[in-house]
Amino acid sequence: MTLRQVKAAVVLIGDELLSGRTQDVNLRTIAKFLAPLGVQVAEARVVSDAPEAIVAAVNDLRARHDYVFTTGGIGPTHDDKTADAVAAAFGVPIDVRDDARAILEAHYKDRASLNESRLRMARIPDGASLIANPVSKAPGFQLGNVFVMAGVPSIMRGMLEDVGHRIEGGAVVRSVTVRGKGIPEGAIAEGLGKLEADAEGAVSFGSYPWFAPGDFGVHLVARSAEPDRLAKAAQDLKAVILAAGGAPEEVDEGAA
Amino acid sequence: MTLRQVKAAVVLIGDELLSGRTQDVNLRTIAKFLAPLGVQVAEARVVSDAPEAIVAAVNDLRARHDYVFTTGGIGPTHDDKTADAVAAAFGVPIDVRDDARAILEAHYKDRASLNESRLRMARIPDGASLIANPVSKAPGFQLGNVFVMAGVPSIMRGMLEDVGHRIEGGAVVRSVTVRGKGIPEGAIAEGLGKLEADAEGAVSFGSYPWFAPGDFGVHLVARSAEPDRLAKAAQDLKAVILAAGGAPEEVDEGAA
Repeated sequence: MTLRQVKAAVVLIGDELLSGRTQDVNLRTIAKFLAPLGVQVAEARVVSDAPEAIVAAVNDLRARHDYVFTTGGIGPTHDDKTADAVAAAFGVPIDVRDDARAILEAHYKDRASLNESRLRMARIPDGASLIANPVSKAPGFQLGNVFVMAGVPSIMRGMLEDVGHRIEGGAVVRSVTVRGKGIPEGAIAEGLGKLEADAEGAVSFGSYPWFAPGDFGVHLVARSAEPDRLAKAAQDLKAVILAAGGAPEEVDEGAA
Repeated sequence: MTLRQVKAAVVLIGDELLSGRTQDVNLRTIAKFLAPLGVQVAEARVVSDAPEAIVAAVNDLRARHDYVFTTGGIGPTHDDKTADAVAAAFGVPIDVRDDARAILEAHYKDRASLNESRLRMARIPDGASLIANPVSKAPGFQLGNVFVMAGVPSIMRGMLEDVGHRIEGGAVVRSVTVRGKGIPEGAIAEGLGKLEADAEGAVSFGSYPWFAPGDFGVHLVARSAEPDRLAKAAQDLKAVILAAGGAPEEVDEGAA
């Protein structure tokens, strides 16, 4: 088992995410999809539909991470600028490509005309491979280490089915969560900090308080690529909750 | 009425957002809070709890935007690194400050000890002003054009109450949304693109398809700081839906 760390960045594209019109859910979907493949999302950006913003984000992030995933901006309307921006970021030409056009022709022949606007969805940068879209057919694409996907969550999830086999993952980081109902963060901070220091980077610990009417507490999370260390960390977290007077409860465990 | 464009950036801080453990909702809350004040969110980043990532994001964004809003990383545990990172970004000292300590002392005297971990929440960079926390008392702070707030959504919303009066907004951008049930994007793309071109930047148009089992359609959105232009845009959008054979429905209007 390799312990190589493989990192990804996510670029969420669209004015509607920045205006608050639309609540993004794709970041979480992508992170949970990548975790069992041994890829951790290291950063994410939300950018507008402005081509220069997309180009800058893609070029900065693809140089610093193993993979980049973009969502949004590949539809048929004027505000769909991602394909051209990614081509510009790589400095390659872009035009309607025959393989993508054939997919759209097959899809639209019995339904509606493949008009000029819809043909925009067949614009694919030179050198890219298509990402299948099992929902609405218009493909995404992969160019180098950048995966360009739709923004509509159901379509984006469909495209991920054609992404996993292209990923060379590294160490799978797993997590364990211990819940301490009625325990404030301030009561466990010292103990948790000691665990983090003692782990010397092999395990990372996080503390996530929750507040609800008449109810509060803390979720303590340990994350590690080493199963033995993680199992010990789970016991250590329970001891921290116990020491604070709580009744620790292990609530889930998985890749994350 | 000024038409000055005032732009903000948002930095969402926390490993739990990148791992998919936690679904961010603060970006949307902040965007919807700022819009009626005449501030548009121009970009956002999600960064890990690593101090260097926080410093880099804050320094890049505060130089390019009128305001920066951060959420997360100001609690009592070891993974709460935002206050120190923002101090480092500005190159100013940080230590426990008397005014913040007094707030915590008043809050904890009847409840629990103000231990060393909780005192971390009184670490405030030199020159910052406090942002009141009506929920759990530990304050946020403003340093220059950067507003540092909690990550827990209910606390973050509470802190915004002490933020609005500090903002000098510009033009309020309002939006109108016209719904076209059963209308695919490809049927309105050409008409919508013509509206965008004709508006020459005074109005921006967006197209947001929805898909559900047995149901689909498109929301067309116009955004402008000029009420007359927006009213005309609403009529134009209805005409685009009508021309595609749909029954246009205006579904909301507001700052956005």
